[in-house]
Amino acid sequence: MTDQPPIVTAAVLVIGNEILSGRTQDANTHWLAGRLTELGIRLREARVVADDEAEIIAAVTALSQRYTYLFTTGGIGPTHDDITSAAIAKAFGVGFGPDPRALRILEDHYAPDQRTPARMKMAELPEGAELILNPVSKAPGFRLGNVFVMAGVPSIMRAMFDGIAGGLVGGAKVLSRTVSCPLGEGVIGGPLGALQARYPNVDLGSYPWFRHGVYGTSLVARGTDPAALEEVVGHLAALIEAAGGQPTIDPVDG
Amino acid sequence: MTDQPPIVTAAVLVIGNEILSGRTQDANTHWLAGRLTELGIRLREARVVADDEAEIIAAVTALSQRYTYLFTTGGIGPTHDDITSAAIAKAFGVGFGPDPRALRILEDHYAPDQRTPARMKMAELPEGAELILNPVSKAPGFRLGNVFVMAGVPSIMRAMFDGIAGGLVGGAKVLSRTVSCPLGEGVIGGPLGALQARYPNVDLGSYPWFRHGVYGTSLVARGTDPAALEEVVGHLAALIEAAGGQPTIDPVDG
Repeated sequence: MTDQPPIVTAAVLVIGNEILSGRTQDANTHWLAGRLTELGIRLREARVVADDEAEIIAAVTALSQRYTYLFTTGGIGPTHDDITSAAIAKAFGVGFGPDPRALRILEDHYAPDQRTPARMKMAELPEGAELILNPVSKAPGFRLGNVFVMAGVPSIMRAMFDGIAGGLVGGAKVLSRTVSCPLGEGVIGGPLGALQARYPNVDLGSYPWFRHGVYGTSLVARGTDPAALEEVVGHLAALIEAAGGQPTIDPVDG
Repeated sequence: MTDQPPIVTAAVLVIGNEILSGRTQDANTHWLAGRLTELGIRLREARVVADDEAEIIAAVTALSQRYTYLFTTGGIGPTHDDITSAAIAKAFGVGFGPDPRALRILEDHYAPDQRTPARMKMAELPEGAELILNPVSKAPGFRLGNVFVMAGVPSIMRAMFDGIAGGLVGGAKVLSRTVSCPLGEGVIGGPLGALQARYPNVDLGSYPWFRHGVYGTSLVARGTDPAALEEVVGHLAALIEAAGGQPTIDPVDG
């Protein structure tokens, strides 16, 4: 038996009243979920909380202790409701104030008459923070411990993440194979459960769909062992045929 | 001073590996956020967890104790990974088994030769559950205490919610007014923060945008007192003009 690569986990914390009021739909969690999976990092939990100091501190503390990495989005802009950075300093019990490296970035970007107190507030960071560069609008995010603090605007968040992704340590990459069929979940659910019991290290998911007037189900096998996945794909095709359906095996992902 | 209507709060718990793996983008939280706001119910938190019994129990326990209502989506279908109903029975410490009302619904819908064990599993509910009807695909959701358990498929979840919405008790409805301007957040952030300090009962949010080649900001005032919101809208327009911008006051919502 070969050495198992470590399991690396993550959580996403979305911070912003506008998500909870229904004004804005969060798109960051879905994008991060895809990118983390590609990197071999397992997203285990996501949360959305308001721009509220106590809520942010509680969530950051709980999630950063529980998972390898925590990625936050939102609340690091120039206005009074942008309180994420200060709350994270409190969560870690460290000081908070103007960071010389962040000040230099903002001073390079804004002419003296554009350096409003609101803008310069974006240079205030927790003590010990490492900058996460922002190629879009300059005001940086930061890393403190295992917490990566990024902007909420999706284009900026993505650019920030792409800048740090190379430094993240991934674990065993989770591979995925999909077999679809024009049968309902209720028809194949029994044999599917029996197959899951035979392969405890493969995660079998079942997702119903309706397209072009046809109901069907996509069966998704996920795991780190390509040989086991290949075996499971064969069993999935067989159980679909046994139930009277025609399996469609999707091309190998990635 | 008139009697204040109560503050009614809620959380949403999305259950499903497919959201965390990036396979599927959750659309239910955003839809529920909008509907709850319309009903005068304040969504305070949202979480996504995996199809994992311990995770579901922990999240249901924490969120149902903390908020007036908890709405869950996902994990009540016919396959082995649909474990939400059993986990919620455990979270409440009640029995779990076939429910005669749910059995009748499924027996009316499926002919005897279609009644697979997987399908009939959808009639297993926690003791004491009240059914939430499913006009789309029949298998019901349920309410147990202050927890409303709904399907993950958006069309089914929406139909289930629309069936229960009339029975939810809302609180003071949160109204919203928006004033937009072609100025950056950094320019108006200072006076906006001062205005927030003057109106602690109004929640002022600031949301940058970029459209048709123009950068700008939407300032959103939210609160339960229409007269206070009207005053704040006047102040927002004035502070935008003072900063050299032209305010656009959106029509009153709702």
